[in-house]
Amino acid sequence: MLRIVRRGDRHDPRDLTVRSVFEGDFAAAFTEGRSEGLVPGETLKNLVHASARHDGSGEIEPFGLALCERILGGFPRITRVRVEIVEQPWGRLEVGGKAQGQAFAAGTPERRTTAVTSNGQQTAVVSGLDQLTVMRTSGFGPRRRRDEDDTGLQDGLQRLLVATIAAKWTYSSSDVTFGPYRQGVRTAILETFAAHASRSVQFTLYAIADVVLGLVPEIAQITLSVHERPYRPADLFSAGMENPDDLFLALEEPVGEVEVTVER
Amino acid sequence: MLRIVRRGDRHDPRDLTVRSVFEGDFAAAFTEGRSEGLVPGETLKNLVHASARHDGSGEIEPFGLALCERILGGFPRITRVRVEIVEQPWGRLEVGGKAQGQAFAAGTPERRTTAVTSNGQQTAVVSGLDQLTVMRTSGFGPRRRRDEDDTGLQDGLQRLLVATIAAKWTYSSSDVTFGPYRQGVRTAILETFAAHASRSVQFTLYAIADVVLGLVPEIAQITLSVHERPYRPADLFSAGMENPDDLFLALEEPVGEVEVTVER
Amino acid sequence: MLRIVRRGDRHDPRDLTVRSVFEGDFAAAFTEGRSEGLVPGETLKNLVHASARHDGSGEIEPFGLALCERILGGFPRITRVRVEIVEQPWGRLEVGGKAQGQAFAAGTPERRTTAVTSNGQQTAVVSGLDQLTVMRTSGFGPRRRRDEDDTGLQDGLQRLLVATIAAKWTYSSSDVTFGPYRQGVRTAILETFAAHASRSVQFTLYAIADVVLGLVPEIAQITLSVHERPYRPADLFSAGMENPDDLFLALEEPVGEVEVTVER
Amino acid sequence: MLRIVRRGDRHDPRDLTVRSVFEGDFAAAFTEGRSEGLVPGETLKNLVHASARHDGSGEIEPFGLALCERILGGFPRITRVRVEIVEQPWGRLEVGGKAQGQAFAAGTPERRTTAVTSNGQQTAVVSGLDQLTVMRTSGFGPRRRRDEDDTGLQDGLQRLLVATIAAKWTYSSSDVTFGPYRQGVRTAILETFAAHASRSVQFTLYAIADVVLGLVPEIAQITLSVHERPYRPADLFSAGMENPDDLFLALEEPVGEVEVTVER
Repeated sequence: MLRIVRRGDRHDPRDLTVRSVFEGDFAAAFTEGRSEGLVPGETLKNLVHASARHDGSGEIEPFGLALCERILGGFPRITRVRVEIVEQPWGRLEVGGKAQGQAFAAGTPERRTTAVTSNGQQTAVVSGLDQLTVMRTSGFGPRRRRDEDDTGLQDGLQRLLVATIAAKWTYSSSDVTFGPYRQGVRTAILETFAAHASRSVQFTLYAIADVVLGLVPEIAQITLSVHERPYRPADLFSAGMENPDDLFLALEEPVGEVEVTVER
Repeated sequence: MLRIVRRGDRHDPRDLTVRSVFEGDFAAAFTEGRSEGLVPGETLKNLVHASARHDGSGEIEPFGLALCERILGGFPRITRVRVEIVEQPWGRLEVGGKAQGQAFAAGTPERRTTAVTSNGQQTAVVSGLDQLTVMRTSGFGPRRRRDEDDTGLQDGLQRLLVATIAAKWTYSSSDVTFGPYRQGVRTAILETFAAHASRSVQFTLYAIADVVLGLVPEIAQITLSVHERPYRPADLFSAGMENPDDLFLALEEPVGEVEVTVER
Repeated sequence: MLRIVRRGDRHDPRDLTVRSVFEGDFAAAFTEGRSEGLVPGETLKNLVHASARHDGSGEIEPFGLALCERILGGFPRITRVRVEIVEQPWGRLEVGGKAQGQAFAAGTPERRTTAVTSNGQQTAVVSGLDQLTVMRTSGFGPRRRRDEDDTGLQDGLQRLLVATIAAKWTYSSSDVTFGPYRQGVRTAILETFAAHASRSVQFTLYAIADVVLGLVPEIAQITLSVHERPYRPADLFSAGMENPDDLFLALEEPVGEVEVTVER
Repeated sequence: MLRIVRRGDRHDPRDLTVRSVFEGDFAAAFTEGRSEGLVPGETLKNLVHASARHDGSGEIEPFGLALCERILGGFPRITRVRVEIVEQPWGRLEVGGKAQGQAFAAGTPERRTTAVTSNGQQTAVVSGLDQLTVMRTSGFGPRRRRDEDDTGLQDGLQRLLVATIAAKWTYSSSDVTFGPYRQGVRTAILETFAAHASRSVQFTLYAIADVVLGLVPEIAQITLSVHERPYRPADLFSAGMENPDDLFLALEEPVGEVEVTVER
């Protein structure tokens, strides 16, 4: 759904996808086919829309918290709910160098995510980002010696890394300034990736986690994962050319994934 | 394929996909199964890679022109070739506000395209852009009177337009400064979309074409198309709320498409 | 849209996607922003739905013909219309070997297509099929001699071909039995692909076209295209194994495409 | 990867995707950037390929078991491994009603899955199927009374259900006949879905689980999930037509998901 926040001539779009998952006492619906107490999809949809209209104009975390509360309040048979929200960012267009209030361009595939889980007493907020695709064209690890260098691929890793990063971090409180913290985590990821003199993907992920936990005391834990897209240098031998790491071809496999979770 | 252009510490990635289409005298291969004179896929692949290494460090149009020439020169049985190149832009990462030479983030789904067609004597260059997704949250047409306002959707168009724009323009010469012209066309599309006080999508497309043809004398013709994603205001009546154009839901249909071609 | 045809206890689903393209005298809408005479998306959508309800219970070609007629009749400013319909087939489920009247499973990605074009006087029907993915594990061309066998890929082609076939054929009349003819063309494609002792993809496509034109006199022309997915034998040398064409790995490129058009 | 099993003239393709996940003592790689003991991607890839060649000609479960054993045997620093295999089925083509040994067509999007987890001492096998898309055009629940029938959607559920089913079942032993058991589970799902006089999706899922646990004593637990695609009847009022459940339009939301896990 698309929530347009209008403050005078300046509009802000919030492009949101909401998913909610329940647990509760629904055994009779499964074993006997009784539908009393089930959550009707249509009623739930209306509740989500009303909450989006009322609570959805800011960050996704407060919206998730408000929606959890409404669902637990509205359906007593639900004992535990998880609300997952994904936001697609839009950028403001400019005309003659001046930002327009009411015109936007879709951003990259990167998404902001949050998952708020509550049983009425306890609430947990996990925020994240997803599908952040980055490239490093040098600086990943020392060059290997020639005689270890028979696979092509391992060696290629050092001169080109194309990877999609995802991150999830758990807050120790649901009463923090989610927006600036999200921005801080994202900057830590990108700057560490861009500048870290890395020996390996593993080492870089750990360095990112270290920076984030040092930066935001209310983050109790962070999980970072990297999905690496394989490339190999093109073989230009038959064309009578050398190829000193200038032209790379995408491969289908192996796709490498590395994940690290660091707790405070 | 990924061509990394290295100038000292400053690298530039060119993320390119190449497709080439031939015509020629290959009848015997089809009717009799004879393979002499056919273009072997592997040889062609090598030629494309060699050309990417040699000619692929700049704009996609000169690369396309060079590749056409190599193909016609290398395979005499080909009488006509079309080379289609799609480029995915990458953005440079910053650390502490300073651009990094060797770290990048993937951009939006927007793509740069070109199609170069040649028979050896005559060459045509058509450049384009694709998958440029934009949003206007006001200003599309005058608000209708209440009594015309029964469809919901038509009225909604005026308060929210989400659309994907594609453009293709034909150059009257293959010896122009493709880069700045591409940038000029793109700016004309975005600024006209953002600022035009439009009565309709059709009217806006025509205005864009008008600006482009006025801007670049070497563009002989431009085709603009818009793929509109349908949204409707959420019905919050059952939630006891009004919804003055604040919350919109994506629909699956009807997807509207409008296309206009304007020649000089 | 999903059209359920109910004949007593036996239902038949028609899962259809419709696209219509117009030409006409709409210049004023583009140059002056006047909207009189434009085809409102909502009205068109209703007309398509009404036609689907009335005409959409059988083959897609008669539905396309009827829809063309309705559009030209309903919007006098349209001088030429093309209706494109894509159908996704569903298969009937069985219980204990007996076909059920009201339960279905989605089929393969294969699609049935038709494009009906009309200006009121003349009407053209082009039918097609799309995304038919097939595999041959032998029999494509004679094995090459060892000394020609340096690329791996070319040689691999002969022992494994994975390809997606598309076809489009033009009828010389719009008053034929579309269903059986479509079935005949499809069988000709599959049986020729499966049994033809081929020297090349090109040769096989031509053989298919030959069979189709011999089979259905009302087909004036057929275009067949093949999109080949590249595989290469896995190199198991370092694992101390030979790999006599048993294990193949998918590659990203080069993707080969071959197209042939044969007229009667 | 594609494993072609050749028994004389009769070939069988196994189209497999393998993912392996490790746990082990890799802390030094993350915190200090030391790469000794890490599993090199290239070596792992070769091991997977060798295992596919040697063990991959039958069901995916034995292949997963063998691959787990090879990985634990080959990399002592790995303490726990999970191998996930996805298989895409291909169907054999016929010519003149006779099955061909070496020609195939790609099947539906349905996939066979298995996840084998082992720490060297204990091994768990979870098998599954995924993306099985089905439709029921009647029989889902009693028709509601008119006065409850204001949402359209809830009522529509009863006359049309389009859903994608996934299932995962856990074996209590890794020494069973995986192939026939998989076939039995699949038949139970499809026949129960097709024939069950259901009051709700929940009720049907429970009925399926009941059948499966009754059928295969070695299945300790089964999880079934349904992803429902929303449709609503087209409103043909403005076209002067009634629409007695004949024409349905796909909606974007709400997408309903129901999941049930039943243990023995």
